[in-house]
Amino acid sequence: MIQAARRLVLDRSNPRSMQTQLTSQLKRMIQAGELQAGVRLPSTRELANELSISRNTVVAAYEMLLGQGYLESQLRSGFRVNKAAKAFTPRPRTATQERQPMPGMMPPSMPVPFRPTQPDVKLFPLQIWNRHRNRILKNGAPLLQYQSRFSVGLEVLRRNVADYLRDSRGVRCQWYDVAITNGSQQALFLLSHLLLKPGSRVLMEDPGYPGARNTWSHMSAEIVPANVDEDGIELPLFTAPRVSLIYVTPSHQFPTGACMSLARRLALLKLAYSSSAWIVEDDYDAEFRYTSPPLPSLQSLDEQRRVIYIGSFSKTLFPGLRIGYVVLPPELVDRFTALKSLVDDYSPLIDQATLAAFLESGAFYAHLRRCRRHYAERQSFFLEQVARCGLPLRFPVSGRGMNLAGLLPDGTDDFQLSCALTQHGLDVPPLARYAIKPTQPGLLFGLAAFNKQEIQQGVEHMRKAFMASIPSL
Amino acid sequence: MIQAARRLVLDRSNPRSMQTQLTSQLKRMIQAGELQAGVRLPSTRELANELSISRNTVVAAYEMLLGQGYLESQLRSGFRVNKAAKAFTPRPRTATQERQPMPGMMPPSMPVPFRPTQPDVKLFPLQIWNRHRNRILKNGAPLLQYQSRFSVGLEVLRRNVADYLRDSRGVRCQWYDVAITNGSQQALFLLSHLLLKPGSRVLMEDPGYPGARNTWSHMSAEIVPANVDEDGIELPLFTAPRVSLIYVTPSHQFPTGACMSLARRLALLKLAYSSSAWIVEDDYDAEFRYTSPPLPSLQSLDEQRRVIYIGSFSKTLFPGLRIGYVVLPPELVDRFTALKSLVDDYSPLIDQATLAAFLESGAFYAHLRRCRRHYAERQSFFLEQVARCGLPLRFPVSGRGMNLAGLLPDGTDDFQLSCALTQHGLDVPPLARYAIKPTQPGLLFGLAAFNKQEIQQGVEHMRKAFMASIPSL
Repeated sequence: MIQAARRLVLDRSNPRSMQTQLTSQLKRMIQAGELQAGVRLPSTRELANELSISRNTVVAAYEMLLGQGYLESQLRSGFRVNKAAKAFTPRPRTATQERQPMPGMMPPSMPVPFRPTQPDVKLFPLQIWNRHRNRILKNGAPLLQYQSRFSVGLEVLRRNVADYLRDSRGVRCQWYDVAITNGSQQALFLLSHLLLKPGSRVLMEDPGYPGARNTWSHMSAEIVPANVDEDGIELPLFTAPRVSLIYVTPSHQFPTGACMSLARRLALLKLAYSSSAWIVEDDYDAEFRYTSPPLPSLQSLDEQRRVIYIGSFSKTLFPGLRIGYVVLPPELVDRFTALKSLVDDYSPLIDQATLAAFLESGAFYAHLRRCRRHYAERQSFFLEQVARCGLPLRFPVSGRGMNLAGLLPDGTDDFQLSCALTQHGLDVPPLARYAIKPTQPGLLFGLAAFNKQEIQQGVEHMRKAFMASIPSL
Repeated sequence: MIQAARRLVLDRSNPRSMQTQLTSQLKRMIQAGELQAGVRLPSTRELANELSISRNTVVAAYEMLLGQGYLESQLRSGFRVNKAAKAFTPRPRTATQERQPMPGMMPPSMPVPFRPTQPDVKLFPLQIWNRHRNRILKNGAPLLQYQSRFSVGLEVLRRNVADYLRDSRGVRCQWYDVAITNGSQQALFLLSHLLLKPGSRVLMEDPGYPGARNTWSHMSAEIVPANVDEDGIELPLFTAPRVSLIYVTPSHQFPTGACMSLARRLALLKLAYSSSAWIVEDDYDAEFRYTSPPLPSLQSLDEQRRVIYIGSFSKTLFPGLRIGYVVLPPELVDRFTALKSLVDDYSPLIDQATLAAFLESGAFYAHLRRCRRHYAERQSFFLEQVARCGLPLRFPVSGRGMNLAGLLPDGTDDFQLSCALTQHGLDVPPLARYAIKPTQPGLLFGLAAFNKQEIQQGVEHMRKAFMASIPSL
């Protein structure tokens, strides 16, 4: 084997670690029969000396090969090549089966300005979060174990979310009305399965949230688009044919930013009651109001429990957490719980327990206030910069939210302008991307995730793209 | 306000923290109008002195009330009651709406002997895991941000899982064939949506895994049960009416423990090819073979890419992690990816990146070997104890797996015996619970999660329950 070891070549300039290189070379030698079954390997100390690498590296490589069945170890007799090892050698497939091109790998990246709906994850107090996590893990064995009883979430988290929603959004709920989901998208998906059949009619804002529209469409529901004005969704006058579900974002309409007026809210509830429709209130972005406290939720006005309230910690904490919630009317709780169980048993528990502690400690509220302050500043700064450049954008709604909808002069080709912005390294979708029917031309800007320098540079790039695309400028 | 502060009563014997008590009492006083809009609150120092509590506690309580909109703060003028605060007061519902009983809260608990399919989470090297987690979080901002591109998992994890499955299970795959899911249950759910229609026929082992059966049934598929013997699933002779999907656990049949013979594997593939059926290979529990290396997967024999390979880190790491995977035939990858995106965007990323590092470092393999050693010992010890007591149980398959199926003499009422065991504090389901057609009476024991003392005590409880239920003993 020492001879074979001489054929091991570790390359310190290779980005794969010494250990990974050593493991894969040994594996190849075993698969190729260069190291035959039963052959004794050099001790970890010998091999480390031979290769001038740390002994720990050799130990780790041997451990890995042991675990994978390439090696076997006997007490005090060291490591040998396992007799069964060759069985694992993957056989190549025929050429036709492998003809597809190998896609390249890309690591996760940060968003470019002004991609909408991105919070600033660098503001997140990860150290405080990890402190809570370490504390709950001290007696955390049950959180690691199977807990299928918690398909809609740990009870302590459901209680703390209920407290938060009651206090901050006026939501009327008990802890057992709250279900924890993998982000709000899972709540939409589960609700589409519970409440819709092929052909069901869903009334929703247009322009509106594509994640919701795609979910209803996937169930072969018929989308009934409703216009949006400065008071939110415009209600249709019809009562027949009935809609089964009404999807709205009343606090901060996606993407226009409109806040639904009280009169509209009451009319919407009346429509739902008279047609026995469910209302899904997606309380997206409600926490970010900079000039006044947020309006209470639509759900808080509902006397007949027809409103299903959806929210998420994706924007208030960080999207990678994948924790959302839904406040269910009592008659849906059991069916929702059973379906969530079928879909993925239950959601990861350590993060849930950590979040419960983070909410209870008040760290969540401190973080929210910090984000509000930064996001408000960034929004104002962006508006100043755009005004300074004299760009032909009008912002009907500001003072809240992570995004700003900017309207363009009638006749502007917002799709083409958005493409031009992309060529200048920006990510600013046209409002039309969110709409079924033609809309006023406009762009959607996300500002929360970008600091002043990025905003300043971004606006400068915008200025160039606008000048190139709109000759009259 | 100092008068009002006198009405604050903090109870040190109350299990809720001082801060929680202070926050909720202040909130109630604001809601009740005892603290009116605009009233200035005492400084954090004053109130801390007044109540003899830490100033940090008062700061945290004020922070929370600020974040929730009950208070407002102005630079250097301290905290005041927010004018909009009363809007949040939850109005009580009418009595009829609240008549349902309040369910009690129960924290997660550890399993009692001998609940099946529970790994020993106390063996999990949480400190090593957390070291990897801390390291990847050092440059981890992208993991916190929206990354909808990764709906079927981080590429580095998909690559490391592909490497693991190629090496350990002979699975033939590229990294882009691997999709990460929330446990194997989500893989089953997504596949049922992609591959089944109402009325589709699914051939599966009987007894078999109820999580799979429920998933197919939810899609209104017709379950075609197939007997299981010591060589695994017995194949039916029919070719028509066709089955769309065949679900098997070839490495270690659930719940009998049988390992499917090579002849059966080849016949099963032939059946699938001739009837254009998909095979779902659930490689549940395959990592735990104590006397010999595991058999390569059924997927490794498949020349036509009809086998969909499913696995999970729930048993090899810990179930609370909720990370499973599926190796997809190329023609299913795009549809699976789109559906996963619709169901919940993507799975939590920090755990995925940590797992990728944990696999790459070899810590995973070291942990697997440690578990194998303990689980093997526990299984032998259990068999000794049962033999010592002379219990009428026969174990046709041992030497592998976390569970043991124990057969009872013909005519024994295994349901009734399982109830008797429950009364003795044990959790041992009858085999019939997993079956559609009548089966030989038996019980399913999980041994991995219980140490020798728990096993010894458990067997002693079993002895008593058996004596009470089977008079001939």
